[in-house]
Amino acid sequence: MTPRAIVFDAYGTLFDPQSVGRAVAERVPAHADTITDIWRLKQLEYTWLWTAMGRYRDFAAVTRDALAFAVGPFADLPAADLDRLAEGYARLTPYPEAASALSALRDRGVRLAILSNGTQAMLDAMVGQSPLRGLLDQVISVAPAAAYKPDPRAYALAEAALEAAAGDMLFVSSNGFDVSGAKAYGFRVAWIRRSVPVAAASTTYALLRQQDERLGYPADHVLGTLTEIAGLPDL
Amino acid sequence: MTPRAIVFDAYGTLFDPQSVGRAVAERVPAHADTITDIWRLKQLEYTWLWTAMGRYRDFAAVTRDALAFAVGPFADLPAADLDRLAEGYARLTPYPEAASALSALRDRGVRLAILSNGTQAMLDAMVGQSPLRGLLDQVISVAPAAAYKPDPRAYALAEAALEAAAGDMLFVSSNGFDVSGAKAYGFRVAWIRRSVPVAAASTTYALLRQQDERLGYPADHVLGTLTEIAGLPDL
Repeated sequence: MTPRAIVFDAYGTLFDPQSVGRAVAERVPAHADTITDIWRLKQLEYTWLWTAMGRYRDFAAVTRDALAFAVGPFADLPAADLDRLAEGYARLTPYPEAASALSALRDRGVRLAILSNGTQAMLDAMVGQSPLRGLLDQVISVAPAAAYKPDPRAYALAEAALEAAAGDMLFVSSNGFDVSGAKAYGFRVAWIRRSVPVAAASTTYALLRQQDERLGYPADHVLGTLTEIAGLPDL
Repeated sequence: MTPRAIVFDAYGTLFDPQSVGRAVAERVPAHADTITDIWRLKQLEYTWLWTAMGRYRDFAAVTRDALAFAVGPFADLPAADLDRLAEGYARLTPYPEAASALSALRDRGVRLAILSNGTQAMLDAMVGQSPLRGLLDQVISVAPAAAYKPDPRAYALAEAALEAAAGDMLFVSSNGFDVSGAKAYGFRVAWIRRSVPVAAASTTYALLRQQDERLGYPADHVLGTLTEIAGLPDL
């Protein structure tokens, strides 16, 4: 059965967040890798913490807060520099295979959407200047739910926007927590495992974020790239 | 004005989680520090993720899940060994100054309580075999709320158990997210900053967990040890 729609996570799944790391390296060369890792770890922590606190602060602000936290011990950057680095999240580029993979799925009549923690403005800017422009039926921000993934209220926005039940849609993410959250909510789920399996020599970032989570809701499919979605037996 | 009660976080605030690290070092000597850091980072991540998912899995299970996640890339330990290591969280010992600090506060007529993510069984076992036994009026687990800190439903249990408003109580924690959560809920809050300020040479664990969080709810007081609570001007 062809799913009525495929819902993609944006950051790390369709769009490559590495470019913000390169911008950090230009400003704070000596500690760029550590700052970039702490930035991304804390950015997600803050989405979970705000959600657990029952409060909401938008993703542009959370991204800026996490950057200031990460830079703190290493450098005293002016506020304008922090603003500029954080705004890099609105200018990420897609992974190399993303446009062709989405195009092929679209040609088969599958509706395609993004469901992302990003604000609508961040997402619209990022998609609009990318090769994915025109390939997506919906670009959905969690903002109207005032809750971040994996809160069920965030996933519910995709069902409402696409007028389809989660069980009839495929959810695609490279983020382990998002895989678990979407599966717990009721989607069929494909985990895009972009990295090689972690090993003893991996960084703390890789050890924390690039393993399968032990949250009890494993993905239905584990894929290496977006191109492999078209080969799924249930597609 | 003397607060009607002081509510303490347990892990890292009254009780020292370092002993579980020593047990890990006996089983997996080569990677003990990394495993212990990932274990503690993932243990908290899972409390936030379960809470954001609107589901609950108890802290004994979450602690075991996080340990299995942390050990995975480094060793293939039998399930019984993972059980034994995880059960170490029920046998932590208090920080050196904890018993005398609590005793002095108690002598001044202040009611003392723990509010912790731990299960009631874990907390009762840990307190019961420690020098803090008999010094606490209440040992409160978040379990009845089926939500972890910083969810407001967890903090509300302290108000109910102590029959006091959050604003009339002091909340004491060494954990930045807990400081922010308790302050957002309405407690007066003291942050026990046990470690030296982080610096460029700090580990990822220290960089992530031992800095003031940028969540907009700073502590009212920043203290180095529990002993300093007695010297607070509003106590």
